[in-house]
Amino acid sequence: MRYSQLLIPTIKEVPAEAEIPSHQLMIRAGFIRKLASGTYTYLPLGLRCLQKIMAIVRQEMNAAGAQEILAPCIQPMELWQKTGRDVDYGETMCRFKDRHGRMNVLAPTAEEVFTDLVSHEVSSYKQLPINLYQISQKFRDEFRPRFGVLRSREFIMKDAYSFNASLESLEESYQSMYRAYCRIFDRCGVPYVVVEAESGEMGGSGSQQFTVPTETGEDVIVHTEDGTYAANIEKAGVDPLAKETAKPQAAMEEVHTPGVGSIEAVCAFLKTQPADMIKTLVYSAGDDVIVALVRGDHELNPEKLTQAMGGRHVEMAEPHVITRLTGAAVGFAGPQGLAGKVARLLIDHAVAAMSSGVTGANKTDYHVKNVAPGRDFPLAGENVAVLDIRNAAAGDTHGGKKLLFARGIEVGQIFKLGTKYSAKLGAKFLDEQGKEQVCLMGCYGIGINRILASAIECAHDDRGSILPINIAPFEVEIIPLSEAGAAADEARRIYDELLAAGVDALMDDRAARPGVKFADADLLGIPLRVVVGERGLKEGNVELKARTAAQPTMVKAAEAVAEVVKLVAELKSPGKS
Amino acid sequence: MRYSQLLIPTIKEVPAEAEIPSHQLMIRAGFIRKLASGTYTYLPLGLRCLQKIMAIVRQEMNAAGAQEILAPCIQPMELWQKTGRDVDYGETMCRFKDRHGRMNVLAPTAEEVFTDLVSHEVSSYKQLPINLYQISQKFRDEFRPRFGVLRSREFIMKDAYSFNASLESLEESYQSMYRAYCRIFDRCGVPYVVVEAESGEMGGSGSQQFTVPTETGEDVIVHTEDGTYAANIEKAGVDPLAKETAKPQAAMEEVHTPGVGSIEAVCAFLKTQPADMIKTLVYSAGDDVIVALVRGDHELNPEKLTQAMGGRHVEMAEPHVITRLTGAAVGFAGPQGLAGKVARLLIDHAVAAMSSGVTGANKTDYHVKNVAPGRDFPLAGENVAVLDIRNAAAGDTHGGKKLLFARGIEVGQIFKLGTKYSAKLGAKFLDEQGKEQVCLMGCYGIGINRILASAIECAHDDRGSILPINIAPFEVEIIPLSEAGAAADEARRIYDELLAAGVDALMDDRAARPGVKFADADLLGIPLRVVVGERGLKEGNVELKARTAAQPTMVKAAEAVAEVVKLVAELKSPGKS
Repeated sequence: MRYSQLLIPTIKEVPAEAEIPSHQLMIRAGFIRKLASGTYTYLPLGLRCLQKIMAIVRQEMNAAGAQEILAPCIQPMELWQKTGRDVDYGETMCRFKDRHGRMNVLAPTAEEVFTDLVSHEVSSYKQLPINLYQISQKFRDEFRPRFGVLRSREFIMKDAYSFNASLESLEESYQSMYRAYCRIFDRCGVPYVVVEAESGEMGGSGSQQFTVPTETGEDVIVHTEDGTYAANIEKAGVDPLAKETAKPQAAMEEVHTPGVGSIEAVCAFLKTQPADMIKTLVYSAGDDVIVALVRGDHELNPEKLTQAMGGRHVEMAEPHVITRLTGAAVGFAGPQGLAGKVARLLIDHAVAAMSSGVTGANKTDYHVKNVAPGRDFPLAGENVAVLDIRNAAAGDTHGGKKLLFARGIEVGQIFKLGTKYSAKLGAKFLDEQGKEQVCLMGCYGIGINRILASAIECAHDDRGSILPINIAPFEVEIIPLSEAGAAADEARRIYDELLAAGVDALMDDRAARPGVKFADADLLGIPLRVVVGERGLKEGNVELKARTAAQPTMVKAAEAVAEVVKLVAELKSPGKS
Repeated sequence: MRYSQLLIPTIKEVPAEAEIPSHQLMIRAGFIRKLASGTYTYLPLGLRCLQKIMAIVRQEMNAAGAQEILAPCIQPMELWQKTGRDVDYGETMCRFKDRHGRMNVLAPTAEEVFTDLVSHEVSSYKQLPINLYQISQKFRDEFRPRFGVLRSREFIMKDAYSFNASLESLEESYQSMYRAYCRIFDRCGVPYVVVEAESGEMGGSGSQQFTVPTETGEDVIVHTEDGTYAANIEKAGVDPLAKETAKPQAAMEEVHTPGVGSIEAVCAFLKTQPADMIKTLVYSAGDDVIVALVRGDHELNPEKLTQAMGGRHVEMAEPHVITRLTGAAVGFAGPQGLAGKVARLLIDHAVAAMSSGVTGANKTDYHVKNVAPGRDFPLAGENVAVLDIRNAAAGDTHGGKKLLFARGIEVGQIFKLGTKYSAKLGAKFLDEQGKEQVCLMGCYGIGINRILASAIECAHDDRGSILPINIAPFEVEIIPLSEAGAAADEARRIYDELLAAGVDALMDDRAARPGVKFADADLLGIPLRVVVGERGLKEGNVELKARTAAQPTMVKAAEAVAEVVKLVAELKSPGKS
């Protein structure tokens, strides 16, 4: 296509609202424009990238035997009430009442809709396995949309759902999707790691996350140095700490800490360390009240807490619940005497390993020192458990091996869901013996927009993006150094011949200075560039430069097309993009 | 693809909820399934049809120089308030408040978003004209969704918006879209007529509608017998009727009509005809009250009323407004004495042509006879106008020629919008003289789902759909009459060779009786069918049958592939599909 015929509003300045390189460069290169908080319009070049990604996803999903369908964005609330996920999603789900008073949901995902469909259309084991997918808009009312298209209120997701008659069949579908995902991310040219993930509120028995390692990603990956274990922070298991060698077991002692509630404030006031404190956190699961204890320097892991509660939706308790439980203002809770008053008392290993600690006194403006786990609150009992409910932290081990930390962007996740949805929505089938069985399910998601953003996060320099050839808006850009004359004619010939050879070429036909064209070409990140100037042409040469190369190489003008065709083919070959 | 690997849940029975053939057949052929009122999931075959239509639309839009972008489904309410269309759309627009309390709109269309984008990205005449489009989900909270995907709450629309520096340029963009639309509908294989349309609340100066004539369509097309004039009912202009020859001009006479409000009831009560009555209709345009008069047997045309009010949004007045105006209950309004109390008194030509009529007495339970236009209410004055504000009806003429009526489905519409949106949203540019000008706009819509449904409405029989080859889910279906042996092998060879030749083939590899396969093939509507049976093969023959043919023809098995390739090419050639 011709540059002059495309809306490519490039910008020199770094946009103030954009914190990370992909967000900055997608705006600067004219790929996207913000419409409102967390929503973006894709301009022609950005959309071309998305369309190339979607074509790759579609090809690989079809090749894996999945069938594409398209469900509505507007879903009836009733389906979500059947699985209870209307509550789980809470405010993150966009909802609206229609003119007839019915509640509707803007699809954040589609387990319910696909399971409902299959419950009506599949009745026999002969129809299984079946794997249905769609590529469509999804919606999440994020509290804080950020990082451009990485955490937005509307995005394009490929979501697939397999329905299987047996665990073996589910495993086959799951592994087939695993392989398809590897091919998809390989072809898209993004480096990725596959880590264990928590199936969390999605429910189910196993999950892996495809993560692109980047400095700026929101996801934290935890792994052992030898690579034998890798998981996201939500999932990463932590070895219990060794029990502290006993300190003098002084009795508990109340301390007046007026208006001092936070861990930091208490530490400063009492001249102690967060690691010597016990955080007493109160949660609600429906009407049940749960108390969770983690060390003052540790973070509670909500996914682990959810798993500890058997997959139930758990949220921070409202202040009035905390006050009713402890008899004190928020910020002064302690585990002493609470075990008998709550549904569960869940104690992190690291707390159980403390000989004693400081915690709230269940009395406004008071803390208590010398609280000894096992003495001043129970470590066992019908509703008491000691387990791993915190995020891994520096110094932790897994299987005895030291854990390291890295950041990344989640671009895909695959789940074994089991019967969580199929049981609730009646997706059943008759097996070979004519006996009714509940379908086993898997679900498999890919964030289309995130592939583009993560590719840019992984590969850019101070001049712009460096896009993988299979997802770049064009494969090659031709830049004539003059608008008319021999260089313009030769550029035109090369452009026409490249198009005829099936190369996706962009011709910068603008009446602009070479410097402007070069700067824009670097910004756009198109992998190859051919520069045609009068001077070079006099010697029969044009300049050929990869976006990644420091310097151009001169090639014979007559061989430029063949050379570009060869380079494009090389770059597109597996493992090279 | 292989039939056994696809979800094609065909149904023999006509679904009770489906009133028209396209809706019935799309469900019966397993193209769609209803999710909730007015929302449908497209299953693999239905989605294949949509994808083929979208590919055609995309090709022709790109060929016409339009650029594809993708705007969010979620739009900020602020933009709609700037143009006032939040009010115009009223309850038809899906809205929701997000977690931060901001009002959002689910895109029913995108004039505001595209104009806002251009207001930021275009500043010079050198960037014009520009024509931006998207193919995306749109949402309308229809009061009564019906006819399957024809009037649904969520649908796929191609919407394009041109921005032009001059009227000549707008005309060029408009005509370019006109030609692209003709090519699109030709290639999609739907017959269509282009009729004049009202630009209505979209605002603007000219519009044409592309309508597929069908018996069941919701749109009414009005045309002269010679075809020199055609318009939709909203637009169709009506010649004034000749003034009735004077009847005896008796004085007005009040009649007691207790509890008799409707035209029909009054006619029965007073033993008169609707054509002898004057309907006095009260409307609101913002705070202004408008009275419109049409003959009792005529229907007021809201589009014409809107145009008469300069494009302002007009709606039926609330009962309290009517009561305050007339001093009577709803149902007893009459024009006598109202001209001085309302912002406008708009009188249809046909009322002005009456010598006298019956109307409400502005007194509860009373009507009045012998009301003479021009004597008992004015036909002229500063706020009074006699004009065409009703729907054309049987017997009407346009330019002296008799009007005929037909039904159809609107599949596309093109509008010249002028500056309605650009002025309000600040889409301006500097002209060659450096002077600031407001962009002129056009907008151009196509209902993707409606193309499929209207194709089925146009071509089906009692066995199923007869789909045009370019939008059918497959071009040819191969049916082996046995699952194994020579016929199955030969079918497989033909299928493989057709795929290799680039023909989009479906192979019915199911273990099913031939009758089941034939019935499903007819139901799906795939244009060509090859049947391979042992008996025919013994003589070296297979059966080839077009969906439209009464009987199959025998062709040499060895020539079947070449024959199908030839037929597919013929069917796909322009004007043949």
